[in-house]
Amino acid sequence: MEAAKSPETDVLPLDGITVVDLTQVAAGPFATMALGDLGAEVIKIEAVGRGDRSRDIQPTPAYFDTLNRNKYSVAIDLKSDAGQEAAQRLVADADVFIESTKPGRADSFGLGYETVAELNPQLIYCSISGFGRDSPYEDLPAWDMLIQGMSGIMSITGEEGGEPLWSGLPSGDLIAGSYASQSVLAALYARERGRIDGEWIEVPMLDAAITWLTARAGYTFGYDEPFPRLGTHHPSIVPFGKYDCADGPIIIAAGTPDFWRGFCRALERPELLEDDRFATMDDRVENRKELDDILEPILESEPIEYWLDRLHAETVPAGPIYDTKTVWEDEHVKQRELHQIMERDDREDADVIDQPVHFAQLGTRLEVAPQQLGESTDSILERHGYSADELSQLREDGVIQ
Amino acid sequence: MEAAKSPETDVLPLDGITVVDLTQVAAGPFATMALGDLGAEVIKIEAVGRGDRSRDIQPTPAYFDTLNRNKYSVAIDLKSDAGQEAAQRLVADADVFIESTKPGRADSFGLGYETVAELNPQLIYCSISGFGRDSPYEDLPAWDMLIQGMSGIMSITGEEGGEPLWSGLPSGDLIAGSYASQSVLAALYARERGRIDGEWIEVPMLDAAITWLTARAGYTFGYDEPFPRLGTHHPSIVPFGKYDCADGPIIIAAGTPDFWRGFCRALERPELLEDDRFATMDDRVENRKELDDILEPILESEPIEYWLDRLHAETVPAGPIYDTKTVWEDEHVKQRELHQIMERDDREDADVIDQPVHFAQLGTRLEVAPQQLGESTDSILERHGYSADELSQLREDGVIQ
Repeated sequence: MEAAKSPETDVLPLDGITVVDLTQVAAGPFATMALGDLGAEVIKIEAVGRGDRSRDIQPTPAYFDTLNRNKYSVAIDLKSDAGQEAAQRLVADADVFIESTKPGRADSFGLGYETVAELNPQLIYCSISGFGRDSPYEDLPAWDMLIQGMSGIMSITGEEGGEPLWSGLPSGDLIAGSYASQSVLAALYARERGRIDGEWIEVPMLDAAITWLTARAGYTFGYDEPFPRLGTHHPSIVPFGKYDCADGPIIIAAGTPDFWRGFCRALERPELLEDDRFATMDDRVENRKELDDILEPILESEPIEYWLDRLHAETVPAGPIYDTKTVWEDEHVKQRELHQIMERDDREDADVIDQPVHFAQLGTRLEVAPQQLGESTDSILERHGYSADELSQLREDGVIQ
Repeated sequence: MEAAKSPETDVLPLDGITVVDLTQVAAGPFATMALGDLGAEVIKIEAVGRGDRSRDIQPTPAYFDTLNRNKYSVAIDLKSDAGQEAAQRLVADADVFIESTKPGRADSFGLGYETVAELNPQLIYCSISGFGRDSPYEDLPAWDMLIQGMSGIMSITGEEGGEPLWSGLPSGDLIAGSYASQSVLAALYARERGRIDGEWIEVPMLDAAITWLTARAGYTFGYDEPFPRLGTHHPSIVPFGKYDCADGPIIIAAGTPDFWRGFCRALERPELLEDDRFATMDDRVENRKELDDILEPILESEPIEYWLDRLHAETVPAGPIYDTKTVWEDEHVKQRELHQIMERDDREDADVIDQPVHFAQLGTRLEVAPQQLGESTDSILERHGYSADELSQLREDGVIQ
C-alpha cells in the first residue's frame, strides 16, 4: 500500500461543509482555497462591479486564478439592505464564515460576529486582519511587505552587510492564511466532538508572521543579538549555500559530518578530510573563507549537471536554483503534476497549482475552475430561497450581479 | 463579546489526542508543536545519546526551545529490538504518528506504515520528507535552503539585477510543517465523522513549497516570464517598498488610489495629486524613477517616528523594519505577549513564541516547557505498561535514556 495522490472520486475530508468567504487578494483566499480543495463548498462573496481586488492585478486573470479555484463567485452589494439580507441568508446556512474586512466593516455589512452568531450559533467565524482588534495598529491596513518588515522577516533576508530585503514569497499573507485554515479545521473538529457550539477565531497577520521566526528568534534569545543577514550562507554550517558551477549556481547543504565526507568524495578531494583547518563543523565555520577559496575554482570547472550527478551519487543535499518558469520543467515536479490546467467554457483555461499533500484514503480535488465575477450568483441564491423574479429585481436594483 | 486570548483553563480543541513524534530540527517539530499547543499530548521519540539534531545547533538550547514546548521527550534506541517494541507500544495507543525519517528508515525501526497500521488501524500516520516516495530525488536529504532553491523561492528574492537570495525565514521547513499539521487536523475530522478508519499522509517539502508560489507563479502563467527579483519594489504598485527616513528605513505600501491620496496628504505634497505623470497606478509604475527622485529628499528630511505618525494618521500602510531583537519592543507585540518565558526546574528558563491565533471559546496552551533529552522516558513508558524493573533493565542495556 502506498500513499499517493488519490483519485477525485475519493472521500473528501470536508465534504458537506459550507464556507462563506468574504476575503480578497491573498491571505483569506489562500485559506478558503485550502478548505475548498479539502472538499468544502466555498461561496465567495464579492463586491458588485469590482469584485476581489486581485481580479485587477496584472497579469489578469492569472494572478486571481492561482488563489481562487473551488469557489462559487456570488456578487452582492453589501452596502444595500437587500444585499445584506442575502449575505445573511448564506451565512445562516453555513458552517464557516471567513472575512478579512477592516475591523468594524463586517458590522456595517450586518455581518458582525454578534449578529451572525445569533442567526447561526453553530457557525465558525474567522476574522483575518493585519493586527487584530485592540491593537495600536487596529486601523492600519496590512500589506504583505509591511508585515514582512514589521515581523523581522525582512531583517533576516539580504546580503551580508547589505540592506534588509523583501522575501519575494508573500509570506506575510500566506502564513496568516495557513493559520486561518488550520484554526478552522481545529474548530470544526472541536465542534464535531461537542466541545463548542460555534466559535470566533481572530488571526492577526503580524502575530502570525512573528511566530514563524522560530529558531531565528532563538538566535536572539540565546545570543541577545539580531539574527544576521548572511546572503546565502548559514551562520553555523559550512559548506552551505550557493556555489557557482561553470554554467550557473547550485545549492549545496552539507550540514552533517556524513555529508561533508560525501561532499569531499564527490569533489575527489579526500585531502580536505585530513586538513586540520576543516576537521569539525566549528573548524569549517571558522575557516570558511579559506575553504571557499579552495572550493570555488573546483566547482567552477564543471557544469551544474556534472556536479549534481556527483553530489547526488553521494546523497549530499544539493540542487539547482529554479525560477518560477523553470521549476515546472523539473523531472520530479512534472511527475507530480503540480501544475494543472482547469478548463473553462467560453474563455481561456486557468493555470493552477495542485495541493502538495497525498492522502492514502482521503482525497483533495480540483473541481470548480476559477470563476468570473458573479458567475454563481443566481444558482447559489436560488438554492437559498430566492425566486427567479426576486433575482431579476435584485439585479435591476444593482444589489447583485 | 470579543475574540481574545483565552485563559489556559479553556477547552482545548485536541484534548485527549495523543501524537507520537519521530521528527527533528524544524519541519516536523513545527507541526507537532502546533498540535501540542492545540491540546494534543505529544510524545517526542529521540535517539539515545544524541537526541533531536537541533539540540546541538547554536545557540543551545534556545534553537531547540523555540520548536519543542508541549512535548514529552522519550529517548529510545530504535536500532534495538527492545526499543522498537517500546516505540510500537506508544504508537499502538496513539491517534497520530508523525515521522520525518529518510524514506525506508521508519520500516527498519519497525515503524513502517504497514506494520503500524496493523497494530493501530485508527492511526493517522504522517510522513514528512524532502521529496516523498517515487521521486527521482527520493534518497536526497532535504534542507531548507535546498528546498528554497529548487522551489523558486530564492529566485524571487534578491536585489534587482542581483543574485537569487535565501529568504532568511526557514520557509522550506515551515511550509511543510504547516501542511502536516493542517492535514492531520483534516484527517482527524474525517475520522471523527466516520469517513475513514486510519490514514496515511505524505507531505513532500518541495511540493509544499512550490504551492506557496501562488500568484508569483501566476505572473509566469500570464506573461510566460519568470517572476523578477525586485529588491523591495513591487512590479505593479508605486509607491511601495523601503524608503529611507533621516534615521533609517521604513516600509510604505500605498497600493490603492485612497492610499496614494493619503500618502500625498501625509507628505503635504498635494501638487503630486495634480501631476499627470503620477495620475494613475500605471502612470506611477511607468514614472517610478521620477517619483522616487521627488520622494526621497522629502522622506530623508525627517525621522522614522515623524513619518509613521503622519502616514498612520492618514491610515496609509506603513511601518518600521524590525529585526529579531527589536521586534519584541514594539507596542503591539508587547501587548500581545507573544514572547513568553516558560520556567524550568534546575535549569535556565525557556524563551518561546506563543500561538498567534485567538479563539473566543477554545484555547491554546503553553504547558510543558521544552524538555531535556529523555526527561519523560520513565513516566511515559510506565504509563504504557513498563515496570520500574523493566525500565532499569532497558536503561542498563542502553535501550532507553
